[in-house]
Amino acid sequence: MSTRGDTIAQKHGAGGPAMRALIEKVFVAGLGAAGAGLAAMDDGAVIPVGNRFLVLTTDSYVIKPPFFPGGDIGRLAICGTVNDLAMMGATEPLGLTCGVVLEAGFALADLERIRDSMRVACAEAGATIVTGDTKVMGQGELDGIVINTAGVGFAERAVPDSGLRLGDRIIVTGSIGDHGFAVMAARHRLQLEGGLLSDVAPLNGLVRAALAAGAVHAMKDPTRGGLASALHEMAGKSRVGVVLDEAALPVRPEVRAASELLGIDPLHVANEGKAVLGVAAEAAEPVVQALRGHPLGRQAAIIGTCVAERPGSVILETGFGRRLLAEPEGELLPRIC
Amino acid sequence: MSTRGDTIAQKHGAGGPAMRALIEKVFVAGLGAAGAGLAAMDDGAVIPVGNRFLVLTTDSYVIKPPFFPGGDIGRLAICGTVNDLAMMGATEPLGLTCGVVLEAGFALADLERIRDSMRVACAEAGATIVTGDTKVMGQGELDGIVINTAGVGFAERAVPDSGLRLGDRIIVTGSIGDHGFAVMAARHRLQLEGGLLSDVAPLNGLVRAALAAGAVHAMKDPTRGGLASALHEMAGKSRVGVVLDEAALPVRPEVRAASELLGIDPLHVANEGKAVLGVAAEAAEPVVQALRGHPLGRQAAIIGTCVAERPGSVILETGFGRRLLAEPEGELLPRIC
Repeated sequence: MSTRGDTIAQKHGAGGPAMRALIEKVFVAGLGAAGAGLAAMDDGAVIPVGNRFLVLTTDSYVIKPPFFPGGDIGRLAICGTVNDLAMMGATEPLGLTCGVVLEAGFALADLERIRDSMRVACAEAGATIVTGDTKVMGQGELDGIVINTAGVGFAERAVPDSGLRLGDRIIVTGSIGDHGFAVMAARHRLQLEGGLLSDVAPLNGLVRAALAAGAVHAMKDPTRGGLASALHEMAGKSRVGVVLDEAALPVRPEVRAASELLGIDPLHVANEGKAVLGVAAEAAEPVVQALRGHPLGRQAAIIGTCVAERPGSVILETGFGRRLLAEPEGELLPRIC
Repeated sequence: MSTRGDTIAQKHGAGGPAMRALIEKVFVAGLGAAGAGLAAMDDGAVIPVGNRFLVLTTDSYVIKPPFFPGGDIGRLAICGTVNDLAMMGATEPLGLTCGVVLEAGFALADLERIRDSMRVACAEAGATIVTGDTKVMGQGELDGIVINTAGVGFAERAVPDSGLRLGDRIIVTGSIGDHGFAVMAARHRLQLEGGLLSDVAPLNGLVRAALAAGAVHAMKDPTRGGLASALHEMAGKSRVGVVLDEAALPVRPEVRAASELLGIDPLHVANEGKAVLGVAAEAAEPVVQALRGHPLGRQAAIIGTCVAERPGSVILETGFGRRLLAEPEGELLPRIC
């Protein structure tokens, strides 16, 4: 597909259409049979084993700075992969892998701090790191640290991100935009009022509660590109439209303030401790109640409905009328996760 | 464990004692229950599932340069993880993950070339990439490309690297030092006579042949730190001594020449398409014959014996006497894989 001189740009790692196009053209098409499982482009892969489904997922973490309000790259690397497993229906991780790449000169005390938050996050998730790998690059060859985690777990029933059905209600498990604004503030040393904190947390317990409460048809965690990107991807794959009730979106006051100051919509900003669910209409209330009964789901809300009009689009009901929510190119900020 | 100001050095990624100490002190001890599976410090982890063993493994690849004689970082990333699975007895990978981290400005044509060799290596191994992740770092924040792969597969019987028994024969599946010398020559643009080529190849088919031929007690692929490092680790964990017959070691003439020119022992140089096996004495001949019947095992040789003296040591029988083989600090060259 390339023409001479084409190069990788930041947008190719931003979680949006440019990244999906790169993956589709370079990896899905170009790998042929060797990449057969990639075609779904979900958060992970599902491999039938006996009468169960083995879920396998991976993510690399390049967040800058590695320490931010509410978490660090270690907590993020555990939660991100636990959450990807949970989004596919595997809420009890069998094991995680951890590949650490370090720049020579990285402070050992920082590595130990990162290790400590991995330990805490694993304890919260009931997860274990079962194997790992360590590589070192020279000074100036890597900006500090990159961590990759992969995870494996069984799902009784796989929950794809493409399973939205007409009439399904859309639920978000809590406030949006917290992670992205916290990292923005940390990176640019913005003095914003109130404490902006990343929401980074393992969602497997919360998801288990939701799955037990009613028929969940589709799930995704709105990370890079925020809720807008996640809903566009789910709507597109499911061939439904999504009408979103703007007034119902949970947004913390600190995030609202930062959003107005910076002119950035929280809908477009990354989350690391939230899930968006599509559930059968009759299950919406029990699922929301179950979510609210969990410490990580207190602000869970029904925020939208799946419709037949404009499949693949997200329609924002603003209270003053309706408008199409633009699909973002992806996350506004590079290295948000 | 750290004192103020301690930092990561290149040796911490070299595969030798400094790396093992870092992993033991920082990760195995520091993660506590969250890292329970790390204690074995094997190439991967083994999780009992029903009456089988699920093997999980991961590696990050930071090789410099990404293209080298005989392969590239893509081929290496597939073969490395397929081989780690195979070393644990999982010779039919259920699925691989692939996390790519790119520097902005990386040439798309190079990425496609890497993707193509991943496809070829997958076809050779009968492996599939089932899920992946792409991240982009800014220009100057990463030296080109880092790839992480993780893999999962079932083993009927787990083969640890700690299973050597007294009287076992040590077998290597072919010539040693090829990968490391090829990368050294490429990196430093050495004009060495003859074609030095990396041996990077998927070993799962070869290992399958060996396992079918006789009782294999222990296996390891001699990557970073070469055969010397692998044998020290196996001998140490198994609490046996290993006597190595120097004359029996298969070394290609080109590697011998490079070795003499550079003053570097091929025993200390990385391989990416070789395995070292400990097998019951009576199984040694059938296993070697089975290996030689496979295209990747033509030069397989019995190179040593496990003894009670000096447990944890490797004793080199030179033909002029015996000497202890020093345990290398790890790979001499940073970023060899």
